[in-house]
Amino acid sequence: MELELIAAIEQALRKRGGRVVRGPGDDAAVVRAGGGVAVTSIDTVVEGVHFDLSTHSPADVGHKALASALSDLAAMGASAGEAYVALGVPAGLGVERALELVEAMEALADRTGTTIAGGDVVSAPQLVVTVTVTGWGESEDALVYRDGVRPGDLIGVTGELGGSGAGLLRLQADPGASGPLVERHRRPEPRLDTGRALAAAGVSAMIDVSDGVATDARHLAERSGVEIEIELERLPLTDGVDPELAATAGEDYELLFSAPPERRAEVERAADVSWVGEARRGSGLRLIDAGGEALDLRGFEHA
Amino acid sequence: MELELIAAIEQALRKRGGRVVRGPGDDAAVVRAGGGVAVTSIDTVVEGVHFDLSTHSPADVGHKALASALSDLAAMGASAGEAYVALGVPAGLGVERALELVEAMEALADRTGTTIAGGDVVSAPQLVVTVTVTGWGESEDALVYRDGVRPGDLIGVTGELGGSGAGLLRLQADPGASGPLVERHRRPEPRLDTGRALAAAGVSAMIDVSDGVATDARHLAERSGVEIEIELERLPLTDGVDPELAATAGEDYELLFSAPPERRAEVERAADVSWVGEARRGSGLRLIDAGGEALDLRGFEHA
Repeated sequence: MELELIAAIEQALRKRGGRVVRGPGDDAAVVRAGGGVAVTSIDTVVEGVHFDLSTHSPADVGHKALASALSDLAAMGASAGEAYVALGVPAGLGVERALELVEAMEALADRTGTTIAGGDVVSAPQLVVTVTVTGWGESEDALVYRDGVRPGDLIGVTGELGGSGAGLLRLQADPGASGPLVERHRRPEPRLDTGRALAAAGVSAMIDVSDGVATDARHLAERSGVEIEIELERLPLTDGVDPELAATAGEDYELLFSAPPERRAEVERAADVSWVGEARRGSGLRLIDAGGEALDLRGFEHA
Repeated sequence: MELELIAAIEQALRKRGGRVVRGPGDDAAVVRAGGGVAVTSIDTVVEGVHFDLSTHSPADVGHKALASALSDLAAMGASAGEAYVALGVPAGLGVERALELVEAMEALADRTGTTIAGGDVVSAPQLVVTVTVTGWGESEDALVYRDGVRPGDLIGVTGELGGSGAGLLRLQADPGASGPLVERHRRPEPRLDTGRALAAAGVSAMIDVSDGVATDARHLAERSGVEIEIELERLPLTDGVDPELAATAGEDYELLFSAPPERRAEVERAADVSWVGEARRGSGLRLIDAGGEALDLRGFEHA
């Protein structure tokens, strides 16, 4: 089954962008590096831990695994490059459904200019998908890190928040649920173009919203050595989502960033953003509710 | 447990080689690419499929997962660069044993000049280790591929064969077995220096012996469109191993290569090699026994 699947996967993959000299089939893939920097992230998802095949098709799993890895590149302001995919495939899944997983990845790769340049296929007791993505940047200074927030910076976020979390709640109540919130949960889109545009516009720090704005803002604050204050009522909400869910539910894969006030107009020209707070001297996160009171949502964050 | 483990892992890792701008802790790692090519391979091992914790310690598993990935770079003639490690950790393993796994990887990384530049830690029902390694080469032409064997080329192999397979048989008979064969199985060494030296000496194709010489020679023959003949009695045997086992057991992680006859002396100066056969027009593999008869060991190869 593995050999048949590997052959079918190699048939399904295409090279993009002119960088890949050798794709699957040799000991390793070979990619022209150019003169800049390689930006690399690895992510694993495990059936029964991160997803369930009763609510996610193999194609959903493949899409989401690649999307969440590419989202890390978006948060650095890097361009997508290559993906390397390791699949642990349970005996019961079958070649056809495993191939659907890869084809959904390949469709997203096509839309984002990514080449799936290598992989590994092994047996496993449950479906395990590991994706390593490498993106490329002109120089280390052209990228955006988590530790660049400065006191006085404005805090912004792209898109709308809470849709993925609301979709997950629907699926947990009814595995047959459908609709835009469920789609948002199953098929997140990495904000690669937006990430590059924000980097060029001069944002000072950036992270993707994978764990929820509250947790991800705390990561920015801790890495940067500042306090970040976010007002719940300024969060851009997906229709029908309340602010607490929008702040604490993860997997929206929007971009949370900081910018010096003098970059505000340039950032607004680069992307659709909402300004949700400010950074100041201090440490950690302050979440402010509609009445101006500080909230402690830590209990929610790891729910 | 995951957060504690991640913090301990970040403490255990060191940067090497001056290429890594940002290691773990941000959305992605950043590596200076220089002007050449990036060479990347991904490998996954799953508890119960590829190893058993009754015969392999977590440290053995970590060592071997990184070693087998680096061996793919050796087979390309590339220099080691960065490793990215995704761990699926079962609840019962504990932080300490998971950290032993990473520390064994880090020790091998140190010996080979590799930087473990990023990773992911998740829960899983059993131990799953995925390693992506990126090495670097001056240009695509300085690397060695599987498809370069030409009719008339000599076939050579480094080191000794069969030790890992013999060690595995001992462990299967007695999980408490020890000695050099068992060590050879548990702690293979990637032949990075040898791979680079052979590439510089002008070998025409190369592959690492992960599936056994017979299977790996067939890969070279199929990718190159030639027939490869190998004489069993010319195989360099680990003490106490018979030729059939040496030809069919995997995981020796030696290097199998082809070279034009005029490169013979240069190859012999570059590394300790044994000449085990020749390539000619045709297809597939011919294995010749001591009496000069062709053998069909396919039944053994997937044992």
